[in-house]
Amino acid sequence: MVLKVGTIGTSWITEQFIEAILASREYDLGAIYSRDASKAKVINEKFATNATAFTDLTAFFASDIDVVYIASPNALHYRQILQAIENDKHVIVEKPAVITPMQFEMVYSKLREHPNVRFFEAARHIHQPNFKKIAAQIEKMEQIQGATFVYNKYSSRFDDFLAGKNPNVFNPDFAGGAIEDLGVYPIYAAVALFGLPKDAQYFATKLSNGADGRGTAILRYPEFDVTLIFGKNSNSYLASEIYGLEDSIVIDSIAELTSILYHHNPTEAEQIADLPHENPMLAEVTVFAEIINNFDLHNQEYRDLLMLSQRVNNVIYQLRQTAALSFPADQEK
Amino acid sequence: MVLKVGTIGTSWITEQFIEAILASREYDLGAIYSRDASKAKVINEKFATNATAFTDLTAFFASDIDVVYIASPNALHYRQILQAIENDKHVIVEKPAVITPMQFEMVYSKLREHPNVRFFEAARHIHQPNFKKIAAQIEKMEQIQGATFVYNKYSSRFDDFLAGKNPNVFNPDFAGGAIEDLGVYPIYAAVALFGLPKDAQYFATKLSNGADGRGTAILRYPEFDVTLIFGKNSNSYLASEIYGLEDSIVIDSIAELTSILYHHNPTEAEQIADLPHENPMLAEVTVFAEIINNFDLHNQEYRDLLMLSQRVNNVIYQLRQTAALSFPADQEK
Repeated sequence: MVLKVGTIGTSWITEQFIEAILASREYDLGAIYSRDASKAKVINEKFATNATAFTDLTAFFASDIDVVYIASPNALHYRQILQAIENDKHVIVEKPAVITPMQFEMVYSKLREHPNVRFFEAARHIHQPNFKKIAAQIEKMEQIQGATFVYNKYSSRFDDFLAGKNPNVFNPDFAGGAIEDLGVYPIYAAVALFGLPKDAQYFATKLSNGADGRGTAILRYPEFDVTLIFGKNSNSYLASEIYGLEDSIVIDSIAELTSILYHHNPTEAEQIADLPHENPMLAEVTVFAEIINNFDLHNQEYRDLLMLSQRVNNVIYQLRQTAALSFPADQEK
Repeated sequence: MVLKVGTIGTSWITEQFIEAILASREYDLGAIYSRDASKAKVINEKFATNATAFTDLTAFFASDIDVVYIASPNALHYRQILQAIENDKHVIVEKPAVITPMQFEMVYSKLREHPNVRFFEAARHIHQPNFKKIAAQIEKMEQIQGATFVYNKYSSRFDDFLAGKNPNVFNPDFAGGAIEDLGVYPIYAAVALFGLPKDAQYFATKLSNGADGRGTAILRYPEFDVTLIFGKNSNSYLASEIYGLEDSIVIDSIAELTSILYHHNPTEAEQIADLPHENPMLAEVTVFAEIINNFDLHNQEYRDLLMLSQRVNNVIYQLRQTAALSFPADQEK
């Protein structure tokens, strides 16, 4: 069944998502929510689609769409997820899906009331074929002794921050900062590959407004530690790495996964990545459609993804506590 | 004045040191201590020197050498340093010079009793011209937001460890493990460039005998954190990095300093390293000879090096405490 999608949010990531769903041939674009109706027109023209424009969220949710894609600012996800589930729409929400474990519990509880609704966090990288190549290589290695995952890119919004403005992505009032943005990628990768850590600690370098501009997080597992380096106010040129004995997996970017070099030792290496599809969201939307359309075949896979999503939510929350990083959502009852 | 050197230890590093002092033309090799007299013969033949062989340490210290180079196992440094100072010999000792802050205090106290003796820790990398280029580049950058220093190399001795042997370099009874070996390089670099951290924490991955096979250390400064990744039981293929805003300094190896790329932004970079001398110890031995021979001109530089050495000793000790890594030297009164 071709799934009818409605989108919330009209930034570049929504356009990348629309391109991916159309390329997958599993979805149609049925509705576009934006406070500014002209944005829907631009999108319909760009993608040769005929989606209905909504400026009212209630009307949007009442329409005949099957799936809602949520790419609004992080702090708005939670209410929109609940509203989507209440309207029996499947949900694909950008990471981080929600901010607190309590919010996640509420979403989970709402899903139990609507057992035919599927909920997906759009962690695009873990659905890439190249991510599965990393997981398979880890299985083959004699011993794993840790990892370092890096995702650190200077955001042009930091120019605004330095100019005295208070952009949302660096504003704690909107759950802004590094960990809730680029940090999600390395955290998702670590939890997907190695499971829930037994302990976690975050060393955040804070900006004057209390947001984390960058930081280093340590995830502690029984046999090894994983070091995560992420930030939005500086650039890193380092790769990511999984340590074996003499061998190591070196990944150009833990979010893009373009190159995966398996170093047998310091003198021998082989490329194990395939050339990824140019749209990095194609893999995930294909997986989500398959789960929605053939749920009985993928019940366990769906539960695993939901569990992973909850674990990531928990780890991020725990890391924030260790760095005394709090958001308004933390105070919600 | 050409300085007459006596060496303790006959491994590859002593040979590299001898090559460096001869290349500098500031030193002669006068004495070689080894329990095995045949080793002195091998060295004299290899370097066309005529050093006296000693198998007795007391006789070695009583000989007419000016400088003692100590490259024995770490746990033996302390007693040998004290003995050298008592015999009014200048000391060049491999890093880590000593294991505990108390040992450092005792060395310092002994130096006060022998005011004409100079004491140097052989942290070769911080004396390299390329290290000074890094320091100069940092001065020019608008803002420093942290750093990641990596030094992680698989040791062939780890094969022995895995085979059930207990090699010294992985044995806590001999102050073995990653932090007291390769870890010294990134720690020295961080403290030399950024000073004493206000806090420090070490996440060690321990071996079955309690030694740290590898680990991640966080040095916390008022404005940023420095992440150090080091180990002896795995290989890393990552560079080291100092974060600015859009700009970053990327160093191929924080110990070797062969390439230093200053990235203005993700698309523009310039190489600021000079080709280093093939012997990485030449720079330090030249500096040490100059300080010894013209002390009045270099009094402050000498005090700064001594202070740096003490700070590094303190930081390593503090890091070990946070990882519950203890050595027999910690129990000494």
